[in-house]
Amino acid sequence: VARPARRRLSVDRRREELMAAALELFSERDTGNVSIDDVASAAGASRALVYHYFGGKQELYVAALRSAAAQLEERLRPQGGGRPLEELAGGLRRYFDFVEEHAAGFAALLRGGPANRSGEIGEIVESVRRRMMRLIMKQMRVEEPGPALRVALRSWIASVETAGLDWLEHRDIERPVLERMLVDHMVALFGVAADHDPQVGELLEALTGDGAA
Amino acid sequence: VARPARRRLSVDRRREELMAAALELFSERDTGNVSIDDVASAAGASRALVYHYFGGKQELYVAALRSAAAQLEERLRPQGGGRPLEELAGGLRRYFDFVEEHAAGFAALLRGGPANRSGEIGEIVESVRRRMMRLIMKQMRVEEPGPALRVALRSWIASVETAGLDWLEHRDIERPVLERMLVDHMVALFGVAADHDPQVGELLEALTGDGAA
Repeated sequence: VARPARRRLSVDRRREELMAAALELFSERDTGNVSIDDVASAAGASRALVYHYFGGKQELYVAALRSAAAQLEERLRPQGGGRPLEELAGGLRRYFDFVEEHAAGFAALLRGGPANRSGEIGEIVESVRRRMMRLIMKQMRVEEPGPALRVALRSWIASVETAGLDWLEHRDIERPVLERMLVDHMVALFGVAADHDPQVGELLEALTGDGAA
Repeated sequence: VARPARRRLSVDRRREELMAAALELFSERDTGNVSIDDVASAAGASRALVYHYFGGKQELYVAALRSAAAQLEERLRPQGGGRPLEELAGGLRRYFDFVEEHAAGFAALLRGGPANRSGEIGEIVESVRRRMMRLIMKQMRVEEPGPALRVALRSWIASVETAGLDWLEHRDIERPVLERMLVDHMVALFGVAADHDPQVGELLEALTGDGAA
């Protein structure tokens, strides 16, 4: 039984190495300028192996982005125990850990899928967003957001993504400062939504008010 | 001289009709599922004509998105005369006029370029964002934003795009209410940035304070 298990592991690792090499290249250059040969040589593998595992460049690209998204979602899993804004701050810290450690994957994911011919990349990005939305709502004990809260949450998620890309480009704000700004963004956006929806007002009070219990 | 001019006009119009038909189809379906034949038949043209004008599907797609972006930028041109937040509100109204009238183009532009093999779509979207950024900064008499203001502005632009897509999906907020929320978003985001950068504090005071002059 040991053999197949070991072999399995190394197949998985080989696949991951290829995907990592692909992400790196795809986030540096346009997909049109990345060949299967480039990926193979960056990963120290043969062209045939890349085709064997992925079938083609588009499939490799989608698989690589899917794996980046899965790693990001894994990070977002709440740790539990803290007050909602603390949990949010913790989630943001892990989000930016991912941004920092997987700069290539993050940028490739969000700069949109150049080779996406079938809407798969858009679907991957949307699925991360939906996951973030669900996690935040669960944390805040909101079942179904009204329009004002929904817009505030979606705007905030877009603002986090944008801040992540901006940070990779400029790195002229300390990460902890940026993360704190983003927590403040959410509170500020909820403040705007609260003017339009009393449900958000209550939520905001619960988030910021019922303090050091 | 009349002949070529007239002919020119009708060539331009034909091209525009083809691009409009393409935008409509590309924003309803994945590019992979839209053929040149589909575009031709939607525009009442021949397949050969589409190839003649655009060369191929990718070129047609890029040309169509470029035209959508140019129309949007045209709308954003400031009208002048108002206080900055009024100008902003006016710009947002015209932005949402575009969203409403060119739903297909807007969604296709922002949902990312499925067939973008050369980074051109990303470049088109980024150029609209840069244009918005420049307009807002000019309006606010800011030469070079510091990091906190830059993040606030980019976040806000992302939040406007997201709100546009959300509105097309749900239409459960009145446009004027949503537009007002977005102006409030900017003030709120500037409020957060002001905690990190005194320059933004002054700006915010100028924006909201020196009132009914």
